[in-house]
Amino acid sequence: MLNQDPQSVSNITCIGAGPIGGGWTAHYLARGYRVTTYLHDESEIKALQSLLETAWVSLEEIGLAEGASMSNFSWTTSLQEAISGAEFIQESIPEVLELKQDLYRKLGDLLDPNVVIASSTSGLSMTDIQARCSTPERTVVAHPFNPPYLLPLVEMIGGDKTSKECVQWTERFYLAAGKAPLVMQKEIPGFIATRLQEAIWREALHMVANGEATVEQIDQAVVNGPGPRWALMGPCEIFHVGGGEGGMAYCLDQFGPALKLPWTRLVAPELTQELRNAMVEGCEKMCHGEDFVSLSQKMNRGLVEIAKMRARQEN
Amino acid sequence: MLNQDPQSVSNITCIGAGPIGGGWTAHYLARGYRVTTYLHDESEIKALQSLLETAWVSLEEIGLAEGASMSNFSWTTSLQEAISGAEFIQESIPEVLELKQDLYRKLGDLLDPNVVIASSTSGLSMTDIQARCSTPERTVVAHPFNPPYLLPLVEMIGGDKTSKECVQWTERFYLAAGKAPLVMQKEIPGFIATRLQEAIWREALHMVANGEATVEQIDQAVVNGPGPRWALMGPCEIFHVGGGEGGMAYCLDQFGPALKLPWTRLVAPELTQELRNAMVEGCEKMCHGEDFVSLSQKMNRGLVEIAKMRARQEN
Repeated sequence: MLNQDPQSVSNITCIGAGPIGGGWTAHYLARGYRVTTYLHDESEIKALQSLLETAWVSLEEIGLAEGASMSNFSWTTSLQEAISGAEFIQESIPEVLELKQDLYRKLGDLLDPNVVIASSTSGLSMTDIQARCSTPERTVVAHPFNPPYLLPLVEMIGGDKTSKECVQWTERFYLAAGKAPLVMQKEIPGFIATRLQEAIWREALHMVANGEATVEQIDQAVVNGPGPRWALMGPCEIFHVGGGEGGMAYCLDQFGPALKLPWTRLVAPELTQELRNAMVEGCEKMCHGEDFVSLSQKMNRGLVEIAKMRARQEN
Repeated sequence: MLNQDPQSVSNITCIGAGPIGGGWTAHYLARGYRVTTYLHDESEIKALQSLLETAWVSLEEIGLAEGASMSNFSWTTSLQEAISGAEFIQESIPEVLELKQDLYRKLGDLLDPNVVIASSTSGLSMTDIQARCSTPERTVVAHPFNPPYLLPLVEMIGGDKTSKECVQWTERFYLAAGKAPLVMQKEIPGFIATRLQEAIWREALHMVANGEATVEQIDQAVVNGPGPRWALMGPCEIFHVGGGEGGMAYCLDQFGPALKLPWTRLVAPELTQELRNAMVEGCEKMCHGEDFVSLSQKMNRGLVEIAKMRARQEN
């Protein structure tokens, strides 16, 4: 199965036309695919077209793929018609397990079993979603960040019945489609990015609830503090660079004890020797031995561009 | 006391010449101040000069203030000499309470009591730092983010003996000096931005410890997912915009139950009616009634610029 080369896909069906389904539609169109979007109801077309118009302005500025055109877009309210000729399905219907299970049951019977169905779910597990599907091997979670046409992340994980081949094929497909797929090792609630985002969010809610900070102060603290760095480097590399010549090892040995301090409501894990080494080796591998001077110059160049961009936006 | 106009300050003394003290030195020089930096030891000058050279490249690109020049920089290893003529002190010595208390004791006696002493501490409280200072009214925490010459945030909070006048004066001083001061309501460990950053960091460590994600996957998840948004908008505004016409109210009413899900190890606060309303009203106030279409177009423009910048960096 899945004998088609993931790079040769040209017809994609998006099921669901909300902000995520619509955002995927825009992304695939901009990368030159023909896209058919399934609408639950005809009345959704107005909002979808408005989303596509907004997205297209940004996508044109970033640069369209050869052959990309809004004329490659079509829509329908017939599921049968929507999936006819589809070589890949991106599902983004509401986050209601029964709805998803029912859809995957139908698709399991209607759709060529060689076609992958990828779910944009942010909170459900594929093991649950595929429970009533007769052909679950080709179903996989592929969770984007909003807007999917501007943020490259796609977190991927199969369910219990998903084939390895399906995960590998889909990863290669997303790379060809200009995304940054991240295949997870374990099915954990919230995947990776949402867990990190949720940790910030809950700490922020605690602060507001306790009168420690206002909504506006929380946002200012992020945007004027760590935020611009996170557009350029992840939290591990930031500490690795911040540690200077000693890198992550210096940071952990120096600031390890701070994990015991009440600097957030989130209790830290024990900083075992294994964890310390995993962090240090992970950073070295990720940075390919690039030294902190070069990494911090790269960070500075990015921060300068963000500062200039924000100054332009304010004028 | 503090009768000088905060806008008329022209001579600043930085005490401490590590990454933070050196970064402050660079910032103040770029804004046109005369800066004297106190070095604990003469041998520190080499690293400081190298830091200033690196910083100056970025600062010139952002744009220097009128009269800004590296020739306004001097250094000394004499504390007495360093503070002579100082109109403002930025203290950034190591995070060791005894060292800070001892320095504030000395400065309390040596320094004109009309001159503010602001501490870059990221983890200590001013109530503790000022304990042995004879003139504690003019001492205040002013915690920057690294590098202080590129990230505008300064989190401010006084200790028990700090005067209100000192906090107000210092806030006005930072505004004049091109920073984004954030005066906190309560002295809490880690202030605001570090608490949010620490929440992410601890969740990341848990994931690595449990084999749920690698170091590289955590960084990729941030940089390709929520990271670029955080350079442009804080976590509250992002949800406010993500909620569409319904804004933050829609988000909380829709995703409130997700707070009960194990999407991070951080346990969420109870989403009471008060907290819900505080979040909703805070967002409305912060956004001055700007609608989500306009806010999301602004977000898109920023994300497009970040995407283009990152594409340039990769080439």
